[in-house]
Amino acid sequence: MKTINVGIIGLGTVGSGVAKMLLENPSTFAEKLDRKIVLRGIADRSIDKKKEIKFPPDMIITGDVDEILNSPDINIVVELIGGIHPAKEIITKGLQNGKDIVTANKALLALHGSELFQIAHSCDRSISFEASVGGCIPVIAAIRDNFISNDIQHIFGIVNGTTNYVLTKMTREHLKYEDALRSAQEKGYAERDPSTDVDGIDSAHKLAILARMGSNRDFDYDDIYVEGISDVELKDIYYAHELGYTLKLLAISKKNENGLEIRVNPTLLPHEHPLSSVNGVFNAICIQGNAIGETMLYGQGAGQMPTAGAVVSDIIDVALGRSKLTFGSIKPLSGNCERIDVLNISTIKTRYYLRYSVIDKPGVLAKITGILGNHNISIASVIQKETKENELVPLVMMTHLAEEGNLQKALLEINNLDIVKGKTRFLRVEEAE
Amino acid sequence: MKTINVGIIGLGTVGSGVAKMLLENPSTFAEKLDRKIVLRGIADRSIDKKKEIKFPPDMIITGDVDEILNSPDINIVVELIGGIHPAKEIITKGLQNGKDIVTANKALLALHGSELFQIAHSCDRSISFEASVGGCIPVIAAIRDNFISNDIQHIFGIVNGTTNYVLTKMTREHLKYEDALRSAQEKGYAERDPSTDVDGIDSAHKLAILARMGSNRDFDYDDIYVEGISDVELKDIYYAHELGYTLKLLAISKKNENGLEIRVNPTLLPHEHPLSSVNGVFNAICIQGNAIGETMLYGQGAGQMPTAGAVVSDIIDVALGRSKLTFGSIKPLSGNCERIDVLNISTIKTRYYLRYSVIDKPGVLAKITGILGNHNISIASVIQKETKENELVPLVMMTHLAEEGNLQKALLEINNLDIVKGKTRFLRVEEAE
Repeated sequence: MKTINVGIIGLGTVGSGVAKMLLENPSTFAEKLDRKIVLRGIADRSIDKKKEIKFPPDMIITGDVDEILNSPDINIVVELIGGIHPAKEIITKGLQNGKDIVTANKALLALHGSELFQIAHSCDRSISFEASVGGCIPVIAAIRDNFISNDIQHIFGIVNGTTNYVLTKMTREHLKYEDALRSAQEKGYAERDPSTDVDGIDSAHKLAILARMGSNRDFDYDDIYVEGISDVELKDIYYAHELGYTLKLLAISKKNENGLEIRVNPTLLPHEHPLSSVNGVFNAICIQGNAIGETMLYGQGAGQMPTAGAVVSDIIDVALGRSKLTFGSIKPLSGNCERIDVLNISTIKTRYYLRYSVIDKPGVLAKITGILGNHNISIASVIQKETKENELVPLVMMTHLAEEGNLQKALLEINNLDIVKGKTRFLRVEEAE
Repeated sequence: MKTINVGIIGLGTVGSGVAKMLLENPSTFAEKLDRKIVLRGIADRSIDKKKEIKFPPDMIITGDVDEILNSPDINIVVELIGGIHPAKEIITKGLQNGKDIVTANKALLALHGSELFQIAHSCDRSISFEASVGGCIPVIAAIRDNFISNDIQHIFGIVNGTTNYVLTKMTREHLKYEDALRSAQEKGYAERDPSTDVDGIDSAHKLAILARMGSNRDFDYDDIYVEGISDVELKDIYYAHELGYTLKLLAISKKNENGLEIRVNPTLLPHEHPLSSVNGVFNAICIQGNAIGETMLYGQGAGQMPTAGAVVSDIIDVALGRSKLTFGSIKPLSGNCERIDVLNISTIKTRYYLRYSVIDKPGVLAKITGILGNHNISIASVIQKETKENELVPLVMMTHLAEEGNLQKALLEINNLDIVKGKTRFLRVEEAE
């Protein structure tokens, strides 16, 4: 039986999970395979961690990544240190030394994916990265392989568990953002500095990877429009709920004849939309193609074992020789795709939720709807509540489809009205197809 | 660029969809690939169908399957006639003639999968069958490849669109079974003879395929316990809804230390379970593994283009050479798996919904709960309604976990009581993990 030797670089949460799967219970997958997968070495700066796991005596346990990268025994290098540097250099050297790479590094692939893919091709090696998006959810494989026959039009979903936990907590327990975030931090779902998650950056990294795979086109990561959840107010969740919508942080990519609409932003979904019942730290991604119609993949988007499971499945894919064929034959993995224009956020068309704080006087509604009408925005529904906040009443509207540029112009005018106090809140809406 | 020639056998709904995808818009996938996929021939008994599609002049259009099977040009034979014979003979001959096979034939694989896999191995060819379960939902690939690192414990889901449409219609519009079925037939979602769907046979075929892949074990198809939806009464949907449950026809496979629990039956799911909001002709499958936890894949489980999309993706998988590696290396595809015992339905443990028709007399509840208690079955909740039907009142209960054998014994006694009229209805329950 053929043996494939694996080296792990980075023994953090996911790395330890991968080591456990390979060492403690290899029969789980070994009995399904005609290959033997052997964990040959681990490099980590803090060697203390090795205490948690029982390592076989002949394994390379090192603080020096080069011992893994230069080992002639090792066939597959699993990069799990995350971040840009030195992960990029490690992967590059691994490829140059003839190792296939398995990684969960979304930031690196979002920013330097094409460059690394090109290096891999020049070395006749492959990079596998299922674990970089959606933990155990096989979304990369679905887009790359199972839906390859399709023209993939839309990809959108919940790809960050931290923010979904916070929004779920706000929605279900009526907690303010700060309190919900604190709960996430206490449970270990959010970092002490939560900005990468709550500002939407982690979602944008994952979206970049999915959108390139799905569109077979390249674009600059920086052109993604990104809005996080730190400004979300509880009352907007509440009013939207009353109108039949649930608030989620969505990563959205839509291809049309003009280019690619690609953005991360808090989004309202009708209650009956399958994504609106994805709660807590779960993730789910909807993929829409010309033949398949609407699909959704759901599961744990993070966590030690789900992510480790995806990494080990990628290792097996390399061991079977499939990743080489995939990487060598499928255009979105060439690192050399045609470019696509990213559309400016002002050109997108969606429905909008609007909440104004207005002075309770006759003619207010007429003035606001008049301005909206002048900018080609029509109203689908209105709630005006009697609740007063410092003599102000909240006025809530759902619009029909409108162009964001028009909305922005209208809001500039509306926010300047005497009767409107403070900045009008708006949220984009995603309808079921 | 390498060219791979495809021959389709069976130009029905799905076959025409595949032909359309390959002929009308090959650029959809061609631009993602370094292979050229060419539709080289079609065999179908009724050649009239060819009018619908514009065929290139040099294509083989024939009523004789042997023209496809014997053509030295053709690399991949796509079997889409369904049923056992002559599909089995066609696939066998295709393999013997050196063709790789792509099929959507769930009945054939459920009944003769292992035998055909063995033939494929002896001919050094592969059989791909993603389209056989869940239309475009990549559930076979997920179990086979993406979750290969896992010990897959449970697979359960909605794998038949016809019955899900009927149950959705009953639930939402309060239609009786017969009326909901008629609506499905009018919309083309159900056959004139709907028995394969409504009796759960189609679900059982698909379940057999999924359970073998997931468990890496073989068993007799006939050992699957199968119960369809034709006896489902609207009032049970209604009462269950009141108790917080939705009725779905589920295909369920659970592995434990004693063997395999494998069954198709109408099942109650808590409203918050992700499967309970899968409506209409949509399908969804939950897969649970030791590392990944709970996952769900959702999409169109049938229909021309979703299924054709899965077939074409399988064709591409063969064309890239991946199917050969998968088929050659993964044990559940060997046709030679260890056998697993299928557990008798009397040994399963679930919660139950029970509805008795009782005479409205004092002591009824005490008598019934007494018998249940004697058989180790305890009650979680009770509804007794004032509604009378011919002097009978419906009495509805949800039990805690109980063994089905005990329930069957208790019901025998209960159904013999003077105060109980007619047969007690019961439904199995699947809880969220």
